Amino acid sequence: MTYTEKYLYDFTREVFTRMGCSRDDAEIIADVFLAAELRGLPSHGMIRIKDYYQLWKADRINVRPEVRIVHETPSTAVVDGDRAVGMVAANRSMEIAIEKASRAGTGWVSTRNSNHFGIAGFYAMKALKRDMIGLCMTNANPLVAPTFSVSPMLGTNPIAVAIPAGSQSPFVADFATTPIARGKLAVSEKKGEKVPLGFVQDKDGKASDDPAILKSGGSMLTLGGDYEHGSHKGFCLSSIVDIFSAVLSGANFGPFVPPSVAYLPVLEKKTGEGTGHFFGAMRIDAFQDASDFKSSMDQWILTFRNAKPAPGRERVIIPGDPEREKEARNRKEGIFVLPAIAKDMKEIAVELGMKFEE
Amino acid sequence: MTYTEKYLYDFTREVFTRMGCSRDDAEIIADVFLAAELRGLPSHGMIRIKDYYQLWKADRINVRPEVRIVHETPSTAVVDGDRAVGMVAANRSMEIAIEKASRAGTGWVSTRNSNHFGIAGFYAMKALKRDMIGLCMTNANPLVAPTFSVSPMLGTNPIAVAIPAGSQSPFVADFATTPIARGKLAVSEKKGEKVPLGFVQDKDGKASDDPAILKSGGSMLTLGGDYEHGSHKGFCLSSIVDIFSAVLSGANFGPFVPPSVAYLPVLEKKTGEGTGHFFGAMRIDAFQDASDFKSSMDQWILTFRNAKPAPGRERVIIPGDPEREKEARNRKEGIFVLPAIAKDMKEIAVELGMKFEE
Repeated sequence: MTYTEKYLYDFTREVFTRMGCSRDDAEIIADVFLAAELRGLPSHGMIRIKDYYQLWKADRINVRPEVRIVHETPSTAVVDGDRAVGMVAANRSMEIAIEKASRAGTGWVSTRNSNHFGIAGFYAMKALKRDMIGLCMTNANPLVAPTFSVSPMLGTNPIAVAIPAGSQSPFVADFATTPIARGKLAVSEKKGEKVPLGFVQDKDGKASDDPAILKSGGSMLTLGGDYEHGSHKGFCLSSIVDIFSAVLSGANFGPFVPPSVAYLPVLEKKTGEGTGHFFGAMRIDAFQDASDFKSSMDQWILTFRNAKPAPGRERVIIPGDPEREKEARNRKEGIFVLPAIAKDMKEIAVELGMKFEE
Repeated sequence: MTYTEKYLYDFTREVFTRMGCSRDDAEIIADVFLAAELRGLPSHGMIRIKDYYQLWKADRINVRPEVRIVHETPSTAVVDGDRAVGMVAANRSMEIAIEKASRAGTGWVSTRNSNHFGIAGFYAMKALKRDMIGLCMTNANPLVAPTFSVSPMLGTNPIAVAIPAGSQSPFVADFATTPIARGKLAVSEKKGEKVPLGFVQDKDGKASDDPAILKSGGSMLTLGGDYEHGSHKGFCLSSIVDIFSAVLSGANFGPFVPPSVAYLPVLEKKTGEGTGHFFGAMRIDAFQDASDFKSSMDQWILTFRNAKPAPGRERVIIPGDPEREKEARNRKEGIFVLPAIAKDMKEIAVELGMKFEE
């Protein structure tokens, strides 16, 4: 089923409003859900509405949070998300980073007591219209084993960095610190396909091509795949995301990050409060004239986009290109939602006394 | 030949003093050279003294630089390195980042008009004794192709992050954004060994196991290796390092980074001044009580170090462990210098009218 962006936005806003969120919060949440769908990242879009709905029913998220600064300096803050829907805590945290940057040149916020916040790129990109570089990271449920271990200890811990350009579209990197995102394993599993070696290992640490291996004690590998190919560098990256997001803020780190779905139990051991995120904003003109910088970024982008392609490849893809192209297409053609997800949405609509177009 | 650390330190300091560096600058340079040797990264140690010496003879570095801030806010600065030996510009830039952090909570410095600065970890680690998190990146000579391209456009662009702990040793990540460092290809080539697929490609973009392939138009690959295994994420990382180091500061970016050896000609096209670096310092107590944080880091480190190892592996290696172990051994047993490198050192000593122990 294909929906207009307006329909999905209004639906999502209404679901969260009926769950008890304020109008403002429900709008932010709907913005992030929609951004995931538009940018071609449906694994972070409507499929997650059921997870949030069930977390709410289990009283594991707070729909009337007081998101607040608990510690600050001119360029930093720690934010307590008060168990908010992740988008609400994250959006406010990024706003604080931007406010700090507007005065001190840069702003850096580490956030605790939050939940799954959707796509990291959404928050990083908020900096762009202020002529700032935006940065966002988050920790997540442990699925990934450190190099030389068989224990899932880290999330897919994404990093997003958005950098303004002039006549060119901005540079927007948004990537998990694993070879692939979790959602791609699920897709391969549903299609009955094997995955390439280097994505996952079995419970004994042997390379595996089974996308369902996580269900039998396996784990995902860090970016690099195996030690020989630099998986310890992926482990470094994922660890930095975890430490900046959770140890700096006082959230749960690594294996103690709470599940983002209600069907998994709350963990017994805590090392902090909720899930952790990290946000940064750097004002371009804290370094140089913003329009000069944006001209240089145009030159950077064109230099790389016009690099000699490998045979059979069209061109070098600048980070942000694919998502922007998908967004343009989805805005025009509408957003396709899988029948199973539409069914979940309908069930929620019925329970909340809403209409839903199937 | 094995040397004491004191001997190599004094020798290096004397070489740079005779080249015309101030006593202070020569000491910093010797510190960084020695740190590379001690930490088991000889590719950034004495082997490079000849490169610097020849750059000096070719008048391509400035031994009496005026390293200065050209733009600043409470939490940021752009530093012009005045064509300094990289260590001098980098050390001063990191000091500025730390000074900014001591007042504004964090400090971020982008540096232009510099040269090869040795090991990134040295500068990041300067933050540790101030109870700060340190960060350092640099761009470098283009050897690495973006995903889908055959053109070497980026350096091995390392990222270093140093995070203080309490009773545990600090977390110190310092890694190239490629599967392996450039020096490892040279070692395999000298040994006549092939390298695993995923490190390099030939001039047509075909996977190659030839460590000498760069000499016939080949290029290194980004972390991830191929697109299927996430090389575009390595490309994102390497690009971010390049943009933060060079576009923010006004240094040469990507393919325009000047060679760090005198036997390669100065490039005709410039997009800025010299090589670029990026430095960051974040005061721990800008986020929370420093001793609480360090206790949490101890807990983080022990949690990961004690994760269940894969069969045949002893334990999870925390970033910084191997270098610290090598440093302890090298301080005790002395530093081995390859005969070919000792020969270069002797030649320099003779030309500068110094003694050298072979």
